[in-house]
Amino acid sequence: MNVSVRGRTAHYRTVTFDAARNEVLLIEQRLLPHEFKIVAARDFRETARAITDMVVRGAGAIGATAAYGLAQGVQAFRGANPKTFAAHVENVYQTLKQARPTAVDPVNAMDQVRARMKAGENVAEQQALALAAAEEFAHEDVQHCEAIGEHGAKLLRNGMNVLTHCNAGWLAFVDVGSATAPIYKAQQQGKRFHVYCDETRPRSQGATLMAWELAQQGVSHQIIADNAAGHLMQRGKIDLVIVGSDRTLGRTGEVANKIGTYTKAVLAHRHKIPFYVAIPLSTIDWNLKAGFDIPIEERHESEVLGAWGVPQKPGSNSSGKRVFVRIANPSSTAFNPGFDVTPPDLITGIITPTGIFKPGDLWRNRQKLGH
Amino acid sequence: MNVSVRGRTAHYRTVTFDAARNEVLLIEQRLLPHEFKIVAARDFRETARAITDMVVRGAGAIGATAAYGLAQGVQAFRGANPKTFAAHVENVYQTLKQARPTAVDPVNAMDQVRARMKAGENVAEQQALALAAAEEFAHEDVQHCEAIGEHGAKLLRNGMNVLTHCNAGWLAFVDVGSATAPIYKAQQQGKRFHVYCDETRPRSQGATLMAWELAQQGVSHQIIADNAAGHLMQRGKIDLVIVGSDRTLGRTGEVANKIGTYTKAVLAHRHKIPFYVAIPLSTIDWNLKAGFDIPIEERHESEVLGAWGVPQKPGSNSSGKRVFVRIANPSSTAFNPGFDVTPPDLITGIITPTGIFKPGDLWRNRQKLGH
Repeated sequence: MNVSVRGRTAHYRTVTFDAARNEVLLIEQRLLPHEFKIVAARDFRETARAITDMVVRGAGAIGATAAYGLAQGVQAFRGANPKTFAAHVENVYQTLKQARPTAVDPVNAMDQVRARMKAGENVAEQQALALAAAEEFAHEDVQHCEAIGEHGAKLLRNGMNVLTHCNAGWLAFVDVGSATAPIYKAQQQGKRFHVYCDETRPRSQGATLMAWELAQQGVSHQIIADNAAGHLMQRGKIDLVIVGSDRTLGRTGEVANKIGTYTKAVLAHRHKIPFYVAIPLSTIDWNLKAGFDIPIEERHESEVLGAWGVPQKPGSNSSGKRVFVRIANPSSTAFNPGFDVTPPDLITGIITPTGIFKPGDLWRNRQKLGH
Repeated sequence: MNVSVRGRTAHYRTVTFDAARNEVLLIEQRLLPHEFKIVAARDFRETARAITDMVVRGAGAIGATAAYGLAQGVQAFRGANPKTFAAHVENVYQTLKQARPTAVDPVNAMDQVRARMKAGENVAEQQALALAAAEEFAHEDVQHCEAIGEHGAKLLRNGMNVLTHCNAGWLAFVDVGSATAPIYKAQQQGKRFHVYCDETRPRSQGATLMAWELAQQGVSHQIIADNAAGHLMQRGKIDLVIVGSDRTLGRTGEVANKIGTYTKAVLAHRHKIPFYVAIPLSTIDWNLKAGFDIPIEERHESEVLGAWGVPQKPGSNSSGKRVFVRIANPSSTAFNPGFDVTPPDLITGIITPTGIFKPGDLWRNRQKLGH
């Protein structure tokens, strides 16, 4: 999407590949929203480290980064011996796979690249196919997000107030994003609306990444405390909720997403406000039979006990180096579940690249949805 | 309540009066939870400033502080001329009233002191009565909170998990607190339970004051992000919710309290978890006819855009000087309503010093409730 840096606006993707220099180029997301910077990973080991260190994060984005990283490692091979080459490819694959061992997207993306490489009859052909496959993976990621935008934009009308939670934005994909896709598309269509971004404690992705994204695209928005959404709904100030999903159960329509999503769904249901989940097909889990079986990651308590920010006077808005501050009572501890599960009866619809479905209709439409 | 400072445990009140030195003694609440310190306001002007600068905050606490401040100013008068004395008293009264112009508790407290002074036949008698009345006001505040504790403690059983929001604790009163009173009483009765404290963004009173209070009393507790309560309820980990109230409508049973209270009430209702509101009688508004008419204070956006904390490495728990950090995207703004209104159908009961009432039964019990 477009980013304005020191007055100049240009289009950026979260991850791209510089074939001439064999470098993976990434937006350094750990500096956002206080600084915008592109960093180059000069070999596959640097690319793996960028995934590990969360220079890049988000399902689609780390999938594409791993695909490019595999192509990058493959390109770097010098020689024509198929056996040495195969061992090298395996080494690159394993290094990138270990970068974030619990994530499935890097593995799926790299498997797609490796499958395409099989058609090559020698090292050079396989190298060329790896690069083409990585580019295609990234291209497809963007196309899927754009398709989510096309379907979802119909839900937005002039004058609406939209609530978002966390950041399922373009920074989490190659471009466009999932929950943000309908918003960006509707904005491009000339619709004017207002977005309330849940701060999304404890990691504040709403206040940092989501607000930064919306500001860059010129979307009217305000940050609210997570506590404020219920009050806004009660006073008739929210017309639509759109969130993303980390895992959606294809069999039940249950949605696992950032902690607090379930709360917003319960509130929306009470106030009869449409609640939509925007997802790429890769986040549908066709195996699990019950949301209760989704493992809920318990994250480090320090996230709840403090926050990262730039020291300054209250009321100012300067950028600079972030520090961590402890907010909470020094002798207290915290409990920090990272995700929650929203049942299908609270979900109005699931926006996919293929169309919008009732959560209970995913299974019977599984062929359309790529299963 | 008890506070441990450098290994020594002693009993403290939020506000007390040193008659010998004619000083109002206050816990310096702006330093908590990172430092515990008692400060002396040496004349009524310093007492007024302590209210303005929020050295002391919370309905009961600022009421008692104003009552003591009035007595303090009255004591300081030298002479016997009734006319000069009356003008002096009026000056003290107005100075303390202006300390926080929208609060009703200081005015109610001082009116009570002034009414008692009328029985005095000369300056010296009126001075003595003012002090006695201020002490009585503080004593009553404590007794009311203790009565809330007696009634509310019956709701707590061994092994329960209790959710709290914000801090309606002893720091907001002279002692004991409202929402905390049942917790402290049950703990004294030997019951063992666990408290989850909502962080309570944007001002984090749950993570700071509530957690500090519970730690001092040795109550088992953990801080959670405001986003996590729904998930905990869904997984059966909350058995009871107790919150305070800034204003309760005697005619309708609606409860205005810290932003986010309504959200917890909606969640508790969905999960059939008892939701109780603990209130002193002074917070019942017998006039207003609809919760929608309660003015909702819109507070400064900087509270949402950042936080106060002590800089340190994540995972450590050192004390020190607090700084403000900006968390949010520098070019974004925030919307910050300070309170919300919970309707009576979501409230299981209202715990008062007189007993526990259904919210819809307040009006017909108005005589018992001091109206």
